[in-house]
Amino acid sequence: MRETELQAFWKQLRPEIVAWAVAEHDGARSICPLGWTMRTSGSPAMMAISVAPTRYTHELIERSGEFVLAWPGRDLAQATLFCGTTSGRDTDKFAQAGLTALPAREVGAPLVQECVANLECRVAGQLTSGDHTIFVGEIVAAWLAEAPGPLLCLVDESDGYETLLAEERYRFGVVRE
Amino acid sequence: MRETELQAFWKQLRPEIVAWAVAEHDGARSICPLGWTMRTSGSPAMMAISVAPTRYTHELIERSGEFVLAWPGRDLAQATLFCGTTSGRDTDKFAQAGLTALPAREVGAPLVQECVANLECRVAGQLTSGDHTIFVGEIVAAWLAEAPGPLLCLVDESDGYETLLAEERYRFGVVRE
Repeated sequence: MRETELQAFWKQLRPEIVAWAVAEHDGARSICPLGWTMRTSGSPAMMAISVAPTRYTHELIERSGEFVLAWPGRDLAQATLFCGTTSGRDTDKFAQAGLTALPAREVGAPLVQECVANLECRVAGQLTSGDHTIFVGEIVAAWLAEAPGPLLCLVDESDGYETLLAEERYRFGVVRE
Repeated sequence: MRETELQAFWKQLRPEIVAWAVAEHDGARSICPLGWTMRTSGSPAMMAISVAPTRYTHELIERSGEFVLAWPGRDLAQATLFCGTTSGRDTDKFAQAGLTALPAREVGAPLVQECVANLECRVAGQLTSGDHTIFVGEIVAAWLAEAPGPLLCLVDESDGYETLLAEERYRFGVVRE
């Protein structure tokens, strides 16, 4: 055990499942891909997400008090890269990435039809954590694809993964089925 | 896309990397295995963890304002199950699980020598989230094993995993290297 730079540890912290925070307010909507999410309550069921305040999605979540967590699968590596490297302030990410918005049951933000799963969330708590904000979302409805495949992850070069897209500092893949 | 019980979605949310929250206060110490953790700030570097208030480790973190996040590898599936199913109130988990406590540099809680990595954390924020508490820890020192192997995860039956221990409702494994 030797002391190390954190960067060496982050490389070990794989896989990191990718989720999209989808938010809408006053006719404007956006999608923000996230690696930093966790379950945080069993009953009521809640998930926590970390979003940078510079993100347009951050503003939309704060204003609406709601978001959808959409979980991309193996077909959405390119769309994840696109949504993570453009801003919803000047782009309709659904149109540009060829995604289909479906009405949710309990919240104003849309579901993403092409995703493996969608969780409708109402903000139940918020905390500033360094350069991000933690939003705690109570899950008020859940949706799953008819044939859910594996979830998209940030991966490394281990044999257990199938790499789908490797570009710049991102390597997306899935665990082999 | 059809509406579903949450339980069906949680089954998809694999792998879940396992971390141990290690805390010490006034001569008492404990280890609490967690699946619910996330990164939450880049600069300063922070991680967030979700801990149930019933856990002895919860009390030790609140009292000391510090914890170590220790990351078990492939050899510690049995120790993880043990630490998750006993209470530190009446058991010295280090002794019972054959673990070695090493002094940390910045915090009072010990490092775990047998783990792949250890992060020393100071509590920088706290938020109640349903039936758990989110502790945000600023990482003040990081340690990595000389030859870090893959991190222990909660897995499913996909081919990309090597299962190490399957007992009751837990299946521990690692991503194939």
